[in-house]
Amino acid sequence: MPQLRVALAQIDTTVGDLEGNAARALRAVGEAAAAGAHLVLLPEMTLTGYPAEDLVLRRSFVEAAEKAAHDFAGRLAIAGYGEIAVAVGTCSAAHDAPPAVGRPAGSPRNTLALCWRGEVATSYHKHHLPNYGVFDEARYFVPGTDLAVVRLHGIDVALTVCEDLWQEGGPIAVAGAADAGLVVVINASPFEQAKSGARLELAATRAHEAGAALAYVNQVGGQDELVFDGGSFVVDAAGELLTNGPRFVEHLLVADLELPAARSDFAGQVDAKDGTTMTITRTILSSDPLPAFPAQPFVTTPDLPVLQEVWEALVVGTRDYITKNGFASVALGLSGGIDSAVTATIAVDAIGADRVHTVALPSAYSSPHSLDDAADLAKRQGTQHRVIPIAPMVDAYQATLGGLTGLAEENLQARVRGTTLMALSNAEGHLILTTGNKSELATGFSTLYGDSAGGFAPLKDVPKTLVWELARWRNEVAAGRGETPPIPKESITKPPSAELAPGQLDSDRLPDYTELDAVLDDYVEGDKGRTELLLEHPPAIVDRVIRLVDLAEYKRRQYPPGPKITPKAFGRDRRLPITNRWRDLPREG
Amino acid sequence: MPQLRVALAQIDTTVGDLEGNAARALRAVGEAAAAGAHLVLLPEMTLTGYPAEDLVLRRSFVEAAEKAAHDFAGRLAIAGYGEIAVAVGTCSAAHDAPPAVGRPAGSPRNTLALCWRGEVATSYHKHHLPNYGVFDEARYFVPGTDLAVVRLHGIDVALTVCEDLWQEGGPIAVAGAADAGLVVVINASPFEQAKSGARLELAATRAHEAGAALAYVNQVGGQDELVFDGGSFVVDAAGELLTNGPRFVEHLLVADLELPAARSDFAGQVDAKDGTTMTITRTILSSDPLPAFPAQPFVTTPDLPVLQEVWEALVVGTRDYITKNGFASVALGLSGGIDSAVTATIAVDAIGADRVHTVALPSAYSSPHSLDDAADLAKRQGTQHRVIPIAPMVDAYQATLGGLTGLAEENLQARVRGTTLMALSNAEGHLILTTGNKSELATGFSTLYGDSAGGFAPLKDVPKTLVWELARWRNEVAAGRGETPPIPKESITKPPSAELAPGQLDSDRLPDYTELDAVLDDYVEGDKGRTELLLEHPPAIVDRVIRLVDLAEYKRRQYPPGPKITPKAFGRDRRLPITNRWRDLPREG
Repeated sequence: MPQLRVALAQIDTTVGDLEGNAARALRAVGEAAAAGAHLVLLPEMTLTGYPAEDLVLRRSFVEAAEKAAHDFAGRLAIAGYGEIAVAVGTCSAAHDAPPAVGRPAGSPRNTLALCWRGEVATSYHKHHLPNYGVFDEARYFVPGTDLAVVRLHGIDVALTVCEDLWQEGGPIAVAGAADAGLVVVINASPFEQAKSGARLELAATRAHEAGAALAYVNQVGGQDELVFDGGSFVVDAAGELLTNGPRFVEHLLVADLELPAARSDFAGQVDAKDGTTMTITRTILSSDPLPAFPAQPFVTTPDLPVLQEVWEALVVGTRDYITKNGFASVALGLSGGIDSAVTATIAVDAIGADRVHTVALPSAYSSPHSLDDAADLAKRQGTQHRVIPIAPMVDAYQATLGGLTGLAEENLQARVRGTTLMALSNAEGHLILTTGNKSELATGFSTLYGDSAGGFAPLKDVPKTLVWELARWRNEVAAGRGETPPIPKESITKPPSAELAPGQLDSDRLPDYTELDAVLDDYVEGDKGRTELLLEHPPAIVDRVIRLVDLAEYKRRQYPPGPKITPKAFGRDRRLPITNRWRDLPREG
Repeated sequence: MPQLRVALAQIDTTVGDLEGNAARALRAVGEAAAAGAHLVLLPEMTLTGYPAEDLVLRRSFVEAAEKAAHDFAGRLAIAGYGEIAVAVGTCSAAHDAPPAVGRPAGSPRNTLALCWRGEVATSYHKHHLPNYGVFDEARYFVPGTDLAVVRLHGIDVALTVCEDLWQEGGPIAVAGAADAGLVVVINASPFEQAKSGARLELAATRAHEAGAALAYVNQVGGQDELVFDGGSFVVDAAGELLTNGPRFVEHLLVADLELPAARSDFAGQVDAKDGTTMTITRTILSSDPLPAFPAQPFVTTPDLPVLQEVWEALVVGTRDYITKNGFASVALGLSGGIDSAVTATIAVDAIGADRVHTVALPSAYSSPHSLDDAADLAKRQGTQHRVIPIAPMVDAYQATLGGLTGLAEENLQARVRGTTLMALSNAEGHLILTTGNKSELATGFSTLYGDSAGGFAPLKDVPKTLVWELARWRNEVAAGRGETPPIPKESITKPPSAELAPGQLDSDRLPDYTELDAVLDDYVEGDKGRTELLLEHPPAIVDRVIRLVDLAEYKRRQYPPGPKITPKAFGRDRRLPITNRWRDLPREG
């Protein structure tokens, strides 16, 4: 059978950085050329970055993205890579699609441009447009109706994009009808816990359906709330994994494939088995198979344990948010508690202790052990640490406003801390990291403009019980490496408290975190109603959690972004009204 | 020709309040019954409220909404209205739609339930699902594929929902093929400046296309960032306006129509002329025409001047947000400037001066005339006014943090004000109104957790130049009524300043507001690129505005909601990445 050396280039792009992304892609093709690749695959929307959101509704951006793809093809040839077929993601204007209300003429498509000998030899436009969870592609893109098949060194290669793999019918089915020998899928598939296995299973099923090997390249790196985890791979036509790359790092995965020789010239319309008709287009790049070459053995990479993959997602998401937004350093309030301890550790793993400024902000209600635990962490990790007591500011408010008590007094302390950190940010240029976790965010257990102030929230999608698990895991990793465990044991074991009133504990206001997180998982991730929740949880806790979660939407909307690690992160995934009287609860009174 | 008395009930619903919305709808049908109506039309998604967003992805909510529609039909009959046909909006589960990734079995439809003699006699499911601007309906709903036609007193009535009117082909075209005598459209169509004329023109075109009279009922009232403006109407088959109702208030519009007798029994599939096939279904409620009755004359209502419709939208949006979220009062910082003056006036018009708490928060840089202007406004309008100097708090921060200067010092003052207002909110229960305008929001000219703190921002979508126009207009209205103009002339005429540094003016940092708003209008509303902008505006201002707007996305995301009055409000309308390197500017350096 004919051979092909395919290079899957999982690279880290930045939305809107057409120049920078093209330069990064060009370097990747250079590495692939040095490795002798014949076909290079780059991620979905490589040149524009993903998700570009409403940027693609700006005509000047789409025109620039189209030009960037043509320029890229030209630069490849000038650099001597013209004989390598390169699949690069971009967007382009669908001038042929009829306009409609909300979809003007020239609306964009999500495009794979196949570069060859200095030109875009053919383009494929994404057919299945995801419009659920974090995706809004029906808002942005006109769906493609053609399947592009290119003949490269005597092998027919079908070109597809991301969601095309996930839905029944459409391009994969059509690739089968076209007798393609290889299906290429370029992706920007966001990380979720334990999702990589699902991707592989799905790819195996689709390869089997198409009767073709399948090469899957994925973006890597953070973009606002999304983290892309790489983990590119190739399966054979039987669905068996041939090779896969590492996750959370840029990587060039090279696979020497033996593939069936082209066996069909059929072009034209076929039933796509998804309720639509698609047209197979064919482009001949080179009909003759390559001379036989010695195949390199396939490399495989073991998958990551769950806590490690979550930790890496948090570190990568945090690092990319900091650096892509142009910050040189971060600052955060270090209370001595578990959330700020883990947030600081993520930050140190992301950008190094020199650039992490920790600030203890004790109030009248802070316990001495809190200050000690904060100082201990700073010492263990070598962060830039300082102590700023907030009493003078709190006292000034109390004197002026005349004795705030209760919630007003609690929130005041949190807001003085928020204002103090923001003053340091303005004066010294740090990005402020917010330290709240998903359990707090779900239940509204935070202060607007107080502990929720900041630019990025690494634990936004991490339930409290998982925060503890991650802390223990990270300490064990350090111990295993013979390093000092970064997080003081006291911060992990002591009962959680906001320390905004004398003797206060989280358990005064919230159910035990183990119970709370179990209900939240079913209510938020599982979207279960009260009746279903009652099958597994105590009624008092269920009703309390429903009420807390339903009333906290305003606070959640005002929270900074943070890396998504679960199927239902608060933010892009979940869009609830603020004004909302629906409570799935028995009527009161 | 047979006659029909149609009542269009434009009512104010609340998202999620199934019980309350049903009770409100029942009262409207009672009024219609008293007026002798034969057909009553209620707005889109009457029972659930609109837009219900991700609530409709919760199965227990959809089940409750379906049950609410059936219960509503039963309650109508019990109340003696069983012989009146009532079109009510709800959502329902599409158990027959094949599941797909992101669209589980039983996903919802946007449904019109036609109630008759105690039951839901037939249902129509919205066919065209808008997924642009503020709409995400492709995310939520399965499109309907049937057009329901009911025969009522010998007249064939085709049932449609909102977007069905806006797109070419689909239900309106099919209503023509079905020879319907009347097309009903139930709507939740958000307000935008000068949109009501476009609705009427469109309805006229569609009535002409369908060869049928068209009755258009619209929701009224505020829901988070959207304001629905009512203005229900009926046009005849030639597209001529017969009758229309007032805007921004609940109203029952009664129209006595003469309509063609039913002239077709065709049911089955037809080409919907939008690339799909639809099925006409027919339900016979009553075949015999009513005995002739004396027709009441049509009432028409003149449309509102632009400044009045904007003012009413701001007042209604603000009032509904306050009351639907359960607040009894509001508080805001009153600087003496134009933005806070207009915000206070909107609040007073919305809920009365007794419930509006104005707070002057002078700093070392506040001018004496600012305090005077604030006190003058409070006196004119009778708000609950107080003065709280912020120097003690600012001094405490400065003493502790060691002399903040420049931006850090400016932001500190704004944040002390924000914290002070939030302390009053926590202690006294007010909703805090944020006073920033759209020009500031666009350019990032505000302080996070400072002047942008609060729960609702009435001027969020109002450009600065329009703020001035509204102020002058509102004063003229008062003068015309022989009332004291509510806004001090000084607040309108003095040069705008944030007063955060000695002698500071807005013009130190921003272009002149007239120039700025003109560029913003083209860049934000018009989505024009730099090349187009340069055709009409000076290059220096264009490049400055592009840079300011592109960099301010994080601040905009953290801003409270406010009533949308333009085609591109910041918020639901516009979804830009924070991490974004795209600048439609010449390369630097």
